[in-house]
Amino acid sequence: TSGPDLVANDRRFANYTIFKGKAALSVSPKLPSFCKVDSGSSRVDRKGVVMMTFWPAVGQRKYDWQKKQVFALSPTEVGSLISLDPDESCEFLHDPSMKSSLEGQVKKSLSVTPLGNSSGYFLNLTVVNTIQKTNERFSIPVTKAEFAVMRTALSYALPHIMGWDQVIRPQLPNIPRSTPKH
Amino acid sequence: TSGPDLVANDRRFANYTIFKGKAALSVSPKLPSFCKVDSGSSRVDRKGVVMMTFWPAVGQRKYDWQKKQVFALSPTEVGSLISLDPDESCEFLHDPSMKSSLEGQVKKSLSVTPLGNSSGYFLNLTVVNTIQKTNERFSIPVTKAEFAVMRTALSYALPHIMGWDQVIRPQLPNIPRSTPKH
Amino acid sequence: TSGPDLVANDRRFANYTIFKGKAALSVSPKLPSFCKVDSGSSRVDRKGVVMMTFWPAVGQRKYDWQKKQVFALSPTEVGSLISLDPDESCEFLHDPSMKSSLEGQVKKSLSVTPLGNSSGYFLNLTVVNTIQKTNERFSIPVTKAEFAVMRTALSYALPHIMGWDQVIRPQLPNIPRSTPKH
Amino acid sequence: TSGPDLVANDRRFANYTIFKGKAALSVSPKLPSFCKVDSGSSRVDRKGVVMMTFWPAVGQRKYDWQKKQVFALSPTEVGSLISLDPDESCEFLHDPSMKSSLEGQVKKSLSVTPLGNSSGYFLNLTVVNTIQKTNERFSIPVTKAEFAVMRTALSYALPHIMGWDQVIRPQLPNIPRSTPKH
Repeated sequence: TSGPDLVANDRRFANYTIFKGKAALSVSPKLPSFCKVDSGSSRVDRKGVVMMTFWPAVGQRKYDWQKKQVFALSPTEVGSLISLDPDESCEFLHDPSMKSSLEGQVKKSLSVTPLGNSSGYFLNLTVVNTIQKTNERFSIPVTKAEFAVMRTALSYALPHIMGWDQVIRPQLPNIPRSTPKH
Repeated sequence: TSGPDLVANDRRFANYTIFKGKAALSVSPKLPSFCKVDSGSSRVDRKGVVMMTFWPAVGQRKYDWQKKQVFALSPTEVGSLISLDPDESCEFLHDPSMKSSLEGQVKKSLSVTPLGNSSGYFLNLTVVNTIQKTNERFSIPVTKAEFAVMRTALSYALPHIMGWDQVIRPQLPNIPRSTPKH
Repeated sequence: TSGPDLVANDRRFANYTIFKGKAALSVSPKLPSFCKVDSGSSRVDRKGVVMMTFWPAVGQRKYDWQKKQVFALSPTEVGSLISLDPDESCEFLHDPSMKSSLEGQVKKSLSVTPLGNSSGYFLNLTVVNTIQKTNERFSIPVTKAEFAVMRTALSYALPHIMGWDQVIRPQLPNIPRSTPKH
Repeated sequence: TSGPDLVANDRRFANYTIFKGKAALSVSPKLPSFCKVDSGSSRVDRKGVVMMTFWPAVGQRKYDWQKKQVFALSPTEVGSLISLDPDESCEFLHDPSMKSSLEGQVKKSLSVTPLGNSSGYFLNLTVVNTIQKTNERFSIPVTKAEFAVMRTALSYALPHIMGWDQVIRPQLPNIPRSTPKH
């Protein structure tokens, strides 16, 4: 029957995107994947993240998606962002090739600094490639209202990227989701 | 079979409504719509909003629904509302005909101003129609308790009008919702 | 088939209950009911509430459930409770027979007053029956931790007793919950 | 049919785990169990908890899971944790054998004390066994960001370990989850 296939194929995409003078920023959650262990149970295999995608403006209200750079926030980095005080800063450093032979070639830094007067934050992404000798910078002013959307959406997404929504699903044999009797 | 049809038809409506001396206000979330893209996936087509509907009092506890005016809050405007400090104000300006030939004919303004003493806010909707020479005003005092309901309900609705609840639905082939094999 | 019946019968009950020296308090959400309108849609018929049930101690760790009194919090009263500042009070007055011939015979009052030092609140329920000349009082000290549980659980329950979880259910024909093809 | 069985078997596990110099800490929610009462309804049988599992470091980035100790937080203890002010402390005392003949043999204490400068908390677990004359201590510094993850995830989990998500499931005969007609 086609039921399960339909469900499996119907992936949905939705972002929170803000367009500013020099760049655009898109935020979207990415669920963890689970792998089967013994007796049909499963546990988190690859952890979930919140994807922050930056891409540059290349003209009046024109943005070049091909030049995008991504930064994947871990649950603890999400915790840092949503608990940030109005006059507080934070910075995250990522090496996308960590623990591989390419370690240290690319350094990504995402910093969040207050705009002042509790009016929001600057989000700055720097991607330095020491081999290609490139240094890309994205800078996005995020208003208090936009940051409130991020804070609320990230707080909502956090238990889901941690996989906790899967843990607390009712798992009771006496709640069959469908009981066709044949 | 009738299963899917039943589900599709069973739309539910629920508002948070407050009736005050001069007008009534009803708040309700509206989900985004998704459209199919390649390979069965789908992405947000029309964004979700929170509908604010104002309609005037026309007598003692009588309100005229025919004279209603609506204001659709975007996710960022919802973010502005839920992060409002007790003594802070905000204002949103909408042109329902933006980017059409009628642009500028109707101007809607929703302002939120503190009642004072952290006791709530005034919500004021103004709808000016420059062609019809009309100017409608609705003014609703919202108590601290009522605003707490809005803040909580809007914070709950925000990830849903952004479509994030659809993104984080478990999409795993090994969780068939029902697998009747015939 | 028995499927829908099983689902319909499987009602679940869960309370948050605290036992104190003179009385016990149990808190539980109660969903709104929906009624069908045209074309299969439905809207809220009877509003949801949060039930607060008080019953007295009649000995050492013995409580008499037969002598219970209930107070049903509306969404706005829930909003009042969850937005209460540490040194703030609130009071709700209910007449269970309002708009009937018995109006005014029974008066219920629930007051919430700070314990001091941000250490929690006193919840006091008074039920006065002017016909039966009875006056029942329940007084429960609620610690900061217990109130945090109530605040969190009530914030969670609020959109559900408002029926908003029903509004934002995905209602898309292309997500059949089960597609048995015969 | 295999549908319900598949659902019943597919239990999922996910933790929030932090590894520190002297020990590791893993946090995970555990749902309440329900038992059937009359007419197909069910009520909470065994309450849900949040499991805090500590296990010691036994070398550089090596931890011994065999030496783990667990502490199960009740809903009210979760409430205490999520409402903790930056400079506030709390302590919970458990006796895993309470109300049995072994009462008093093992004493567990979990204390949460501020690191200072609003920079997080120390979580200290002490397990004293008066018969075996053992005294185990685990001490974990939790950063502000990590505590924000715990606070958000515990706030999310709280209504679920209380069973309220089961109470507010729509239980309406006119929403069959699947209605295969044969």
